[in-house]
Parts: sequence; structure tokens; C-alpha cells
Amino acid sequence: MRMYDIIEHKKKGMALTKEEIQFVVDGYTNGTIPDYQVSALLMAIYFQGMSLEETAQLTMAMAQSGDMIDLSPISGIKVDKHSTGGVGDKITIVLAPLVAAVGAKVAKMSGRGLGHTGGTIDKLESFEGFKVEISEEDFFKQVNEHHIAVVGQSGELAPADKKLYALRDVTATVDNMSLIASSIMSKKIASGADAICLDVKCGSGAFMKTLEDAEALARAMVDIGNHVGRHTMAIVSDMNQPLGYAVGNALEIIEGIETLKGNGPEDLTKLTITLASHMLVLANVCDSLEEAETKVQEVIQNGKAIEKLQEWIALQGGNPEAVVNYSLLPQAGHKKAVTLGQAGYVAGIEAESVGKAALVLGAGRETKESDIDLSVGIVIHKKIGDVIGADDVVATIHYNDENKCKAAEEILKAAYSVSHEKVEPNTLIYKVISAN
Amino acid sequence: MRMYDIIEHKKKGMALTKEEIQFVVDGYTNGTIPDYQVSALLMAIYFQGMSLEETAQLTMAMAQSGDMIDLSPISGIKVDKHSTGGVGDKITIVLAPLVAAVGAKVAKMSGRGLGHTGGTIDKLESFEGFKVEISEEDFFKQVNEHHIAVVGQSGELAPADKKLYALRDVTATVDNMSLIASSIMSKKIASGADAICLDVKCGSGAFMKTLEDAEALARAMVDIGNHVGRHTMAIVSDMNQPLGYAVGNALEIIEGIETLKGNGPEDLTKLTITLASHMLVLANVCDSLEEAETKVQEVIQNGKAIEKLQEWIALQGGNPEAVVNYSLLPQAGHKKAVTLGQAGYVAGIEAESVGKAALVLGAGRETKESDIDLSVGIVIHKKIGDVIGADDVVATIHYNDENKCKAAEEILKAAYSVSHEKVEPNTLIYKVISAN
Repeated sequence: MRMYDIIEHKKKGMALTKEEIQFVVDGYTNGTIPDYQVSALLMAIYFQGMSLEETAQLTMAMAQSGDMIDLSPISGIKVDKHSTGGVGDKITIVLAPLVAAVGAKVAKMSGRGLGHTGGTIDKLESFEGFKVEISEEDFFKQVNEHHIAVVGQSGELAPADKKLYALRDVTATVDNMSLIASSIMSKKIASGADAICLDVKCGSGAFMKTLEDAEALARAMVDIGNHVGRHTMAIVSDMNQPLGYAVGNALEIIEGIETLKGNGPEDLTKLTITLASHMLVLANVCDSLEEAETKVQEVIQNGKAIEKLQEWIALQGGNPEAVVNYSLLPQAGHKKAVTLGQAGYVAGIEAESVGKAALVLGAGRETKESDIDLSVGIVIHKKIGDVIGADDVVATIHYNDENKCKAAEEILKAAYSVSHEKVEPNTLIYKVISAN
Repeated sequence: MRMYDIIEHKKKGMALTKEEIQFVVDGYTNGTIPDYQVSALLMAIYFQGMSLEETAQLTMAMAQSGDMIDLSPISGIKVDKHSTGGVGDKITIVLAPLVAAVGAKVAKMSGRGLGHTGGTIDKLESFEGFKVEISEEDFFKQVNEHHIAVVGQSGELAPADKKLYALRDVTATVDNMSLIASSIMSKKIASGADAICLDVKCGSGAFMKTLEDAEALARAMVDIGNHVGRHTMAIVSDMNQPLGYAVGNALEIIEGIETLKGNGPEDLTKLTITLASHMLVLANVCDSLEEAETKVQEVIQNGKAIEKLQEWIALQGGNPEAVVNYSLLPQAGHKKAVTLGQAGYVAGIEAESVGKAALVLGAGRETKESDIDLSVGIVIHKKIGDVIGADDVVATIHYNDENKCKAAEEILKAAYSVSHEKVEPNTLIYKVISAN
């Protein structure tokens, strides 16, 4: 087999065979196929596309290029959730104890990564003493006995994807649905879950800017997952403004706790309950979405959800007292109220800019080596469709450095747009994509 | 300017600007732009194409990436001829003295290269003592005074093209008309001629297999040439069988001499006279094709053409006696007659296979370092449309090595196809492509 012929086949619009795809992924991972041939192939894929069959094979080949997590020591169906990423997305922290409280098993590996704020793992470290590294044996035991564990990613998941993504990133070949979908799914499949619930974000603050694109990506990922034998479904949800109100690590933890107590923001609550219901059905814990939603509402109202969070925090060495006493969480030294000097309806909040402001404050990593300040961030008070007066506080900045606060304030002010005409609130959930 | 954006522009179907094309060619030549970005761009060009404007700019940027030959010390219009390559193509050896005898100036630089036989320069070395390296001053003087000089390529012509071609060759991005045309034309333009006459080969033994493709390439090159101010025209000619009868270095020299004496094969004679006539018009030596053809016929019949060849050979140190005494040219030790054992009409002679047979005998280079045996080769006796008996000799192999002869004979026999039904001879000249 020659890489030249594989490029030629795809260039001419032929479907690549399983063996050809395996040859490319193996050769690129072990360095026998050079970058310049792979980038030519990627561009040919951009123009000619890939069938579901090819996309699924690429996904599996990338998944199998590194460690494949084996969750079989955990009994029953393990269900995982993945979000394509947005600003203020603290869903895992709410969702995991919620579905565990109803009876599903959450065995989640989560990354730190780069971004506006830290990853789930970083956020959880807001609980003093919380350990994100536990032995495999303890991990399995904890999930079997308590239904919940979230740990940092160990091992090397889908190194082929990592290498391919880095190449796509410099050769303008990122924006192809098959490549995007297989990149995400290869890591989820290597992570070992039996069922996968996807939250595909859509809007100005998301990778997918249009509903059409978000839906196409959701469909592609759902198809791949089910094609390779993992029950997969997706929700397409809004990211034209931050999710909930808090953007920052400890601030998002507090908002997550409030949501588990039944006092969360409407959008975060609704989206989390929807995702939880789908996960419970995928995990065969509930028979219908209606039953699942009823049970989820129940564990919020009867306190089982917040108890599960406390149990989980304690199991991983954190202080569960912080769930009732927020002063035990990292707190920024200063707060600054942000006003816009304009009255009207909030017409837009550029989610990416709000994220940028949080990053400037120190809530996220600019490079892998950056330290995160868990205490800083932004709490917005007014969202799209809300009426504001000229002096109304639209957001509060939690900061430790005066200069950073000033920079963040500028970005935040520019993120808001105000209209004199009535603005309707955003739709939150656009679509639910199930297996065909 | 960023290479990423340039790839993205072409991917989206935008025309690249002059500055973008210059940036790519400069950056790739000096190593600041990596292979993998260039190959992604090349594949995007394959799918999105390039306008004439872009193609012409790429051509000029590649031409200017190395030495630009300045032929201005030679007075008048310098006209060059280029063939896209075929088997048995000894046209330059006939054409150069022909047009010089009528009055045009031929200042030609020719390569050695790889192939079934040597390049023009190798073939000329069949004349004992012939020097292919002469000083620039002597080169100009010889052309001014005697109208003819053919030398080996000195300097580095279009290094950007060389590097790009090598990359295209391993990334399945060779077959794009704009890229093929700009590659050829960049070298011709760097070679300094004012006017260019192109012989685009078409058929099974050529790079362009179909008339449609050959015509498109001819049109693209003619358009580029005229766009950048070089008078350019092209002929699309047949390469479904070897041109003439001889394939080999000294053997082709003999056939070339015979053609200048008026005893050449019909196809070689006709094609050479046609090209010569166009060159004479491009060079402003003749006012019309009719006048040019009359004068060309004249110099063949009155012996001026063969005298010009002798003059030229002598000027470059070769022995002009060889023009009348072929025993002074390299001669193979042995000859082998090839018969097919079938009677009928010759329906096809795979030109590429005949070339392969010559290569096997040692007439060409397999790698840059290979030595060439100038004496060996093949003389075919029957061409498409000819009637043959089962015992008729269809070709003679001139060889020095028995094993190589056997291998060549096998290839040669397989190259012929014989039909029981009447076969029409091939068309020789399909199209003449002039400036729009």
C-alpha cells in the first residue's frame, strides 16, 4: 500500500477502505508517513468528504492508536457526556451527581486543557483537598459502590488524533464535519463509555456558529457512535451567550451547587435536567424521558442530589462542608460592578468576549504551563432579553489584580449590545438528535 | 501575511493575489514555509483551480526564483521550442539547423534529465568531441554569427519549480493544468527566449493521454506565455506511437541527419517542418506560414540545412564528417531482428513500452548517476496502419548485452498489437493553438 495512491483515491472521490485508513493512521502516528502527504490527504477529504463508514473507521483507528480504557470492572451501562465547549459550561459538576443520585454510573475522565476557565478537573480543585488522581482500583470501586467518580485523564488517549489535529490546525483543514466528528468521538470511544450523550453548542461563542453546522456535527457524531456500537445521542444547545451567570472556576462551582439545590439559573437547570434525563434512559436506569425527568426533579427537591455531591467530594478527599459554606471555596479579594450607561434591552452578550475577560483575569490557561487563579471570574446579572437601566449592574468582576480587572471590564462592556426595541430571550435547546 | 490564510483563501475558491503567490514561492524556496502547508495549498489548487492571472503570476514567481538568462547580447528575436516529451523525439536536432539555415537565431539550453533515452545534449555527444559547455561570451558570439548554439543548462533555472514539482510528485497533485503549465513555462521563461513554440504531445506515450487534456495544457501554456509578454504558440501532436523510427541516442542522430537530407520518416519530417515554419514566423524571419514552409523545404533540398548542421557540429568541437559517414558515430556491437509471428495490420505500438525497451538496453538514465550507452537502441520498421506478414521484421534491436537484448525484445513484442481488420494511420498534428 502506498500513501500516494490513497491520496489519489480520495482526490478522485473514492471511498477509502478500512485498510487504507488504518495504514494512514498507523503510518502517521509512527512517523513513516510524512506531514506533507497527510496534509494533502486532509485537503482532499475536505473537498471530497467521507462516508459514515469511512468516518467511523477513521474514528476507531484513531481511538485505537493509544490507550483504550476498559471500564468492564464497573457493572452495568456506563454513560458519558461530552460538550463541544462553551463559556460558562459547568454542566458536568451538576450532571454527574444528578444522574448518580437517580442511579446511573458516572465514571468520567476529564481534561484540564486550555480555555477561558479551567477544565472540570480544575474547577473541582476549588474544593480543598479534592484529589483528581486516584488508583484504577479505587476508581472502579468508587463507581461501583457510589456511582460517581471524576478523575484526570491518565494514559494517552488517541495520540493519532492529537497529531492529526495539530496538522489540520496549520493547514486550514479543521472545518470538515467528518474530521471534527471523528476527532471528538475517537477520544470519547477510547475513554470506554458504553453510551454517550453529546451537548453540541451552537452560536457566536461556540465552534459551530450556525444551527445548520451544529446539527450536522451532532448528526455525524451520533452516527459514528452508534455505528461503532456505542449508544449515542446529542442535544444542540445555545451558546450565543454564556450558560448560566458565572464564568470562573470557584464561581461556577457555587452556581453548580445552587443548581443542585434547585436555585440555579433557568437555562443551566433546564439544559442539565434534559441531558440528565437522556443519560438515564441511555443507561437503562429509566424507561422513558418522562420518568427520568420526574426522578431528576425529585432528587433535586428531596436533597438527594446535593447529598450525592457531598458524598462524592468527600470520597475524593475534598471538604464537603464547602457545599453549604461557600467561604471555604477560593474567593477573590475584590469585586467590581460593571454598568453600561445605556438603557434598553440586552440584545447580545458575546460569549467569547466574556470568556476572554475571564482569561484576562487569570481564570484560564493561555499556555499549558499557566497557573490558574480559581477564585477570579465574572458573574453576569443580565442576559439576552433582559431590560436594563443605564446604571444597572450588568456584571460583577471578581478579581485580585487591579490592572487585569480594568482590562476585563473593557472587554466585558464591549461584549454587551443594547437595543431600544424589545428582544426575545434565546432559544436554549434547538434540537435533539437520536440514532437513526 | 500568513500561509494559513492563503490556503484558506484558495480552499474557499478565491483568486490568490500577486503578493500571496509571491509569498508562497519565496517562502517555500527559502524554507520558511513548510512542505505540509504547501501540499495542502496544492491540493486546494487542484480542486479550485487558478485563473490565468494567478497561473501567470505563479509562473513568473517561479521563473524569478533562480537565474534569469539574459539573451539580449544576441540581436533580434530569439525563439525557443519545447516539447512536453515523448518517445523518439529527436526534433531539436533537426529543427535547430533548419530554422538557423533559413535565418532565425537558435540559442538553446537543453537538459540531460532522466528518460528512455538521453536528452538532446546527450544525443549531441554522439558526435565525437562535441562540447556542450561553452562560455557565455562564446555562446552569444556563436549565435550572433552562426545563428545556432545548443548548450547544457548552466545556472539554476526556476529552483522553486523544482522543489514544488518534487512535492507534487509525492502528494498526488501533479495533474492540474495550471500547475503543469506554470511548471513548464517557468523554466522556458527563465531561459530567456522572446518567443516560444511548444510541441504538446498527446497519446498513450505522452503525459497527456487525451486530446482534450493536451489541448487544455497547450492553451494554458500559450495563454501564460503571451500574458507575460513572450510570443507563444503550440502544436498538439501525436504520441500514440514513437515519432519517426529510431529510439536511442546515436540512432536518433542518424535519423535526424537523414531528415535534414530530405530522407527522413514522413511523420518526423512533417512535424519538424510545421514547427520550423511557426518558429520562423514567430521570429519575424518570415511573414507567413506559407513563405516559411517554402523556405524550409528549400534549405532541405538545396543542402543548406545539412551544411548548417555540419557548421554547428564543427563550431562546438564535434567531427562534422560523421554527418556523411555514420561509422564515425557510436555503433552497437550487435543487431537483433524482431518478428511477431502474426500477420495483419499494426494496430498499436505502445510508445512507452518502446521507450522502456530502449531504457533496458542502456539508452537512458534510470537515476541521475546512470551512464548512457549512446550506441544502443531500437529502430522500428512498421508503424500503425502498416501491413505485416508473420515473419516480417517489425523492429531491429541495436545492443551490446545479450541479456538486455532479450529483455528489450520481450517488451518490444508486447508493445505491438496486430489487427486483422484494416487500420488507418494516426493523425500526426491534431491542433495548432495560437494566442487568443
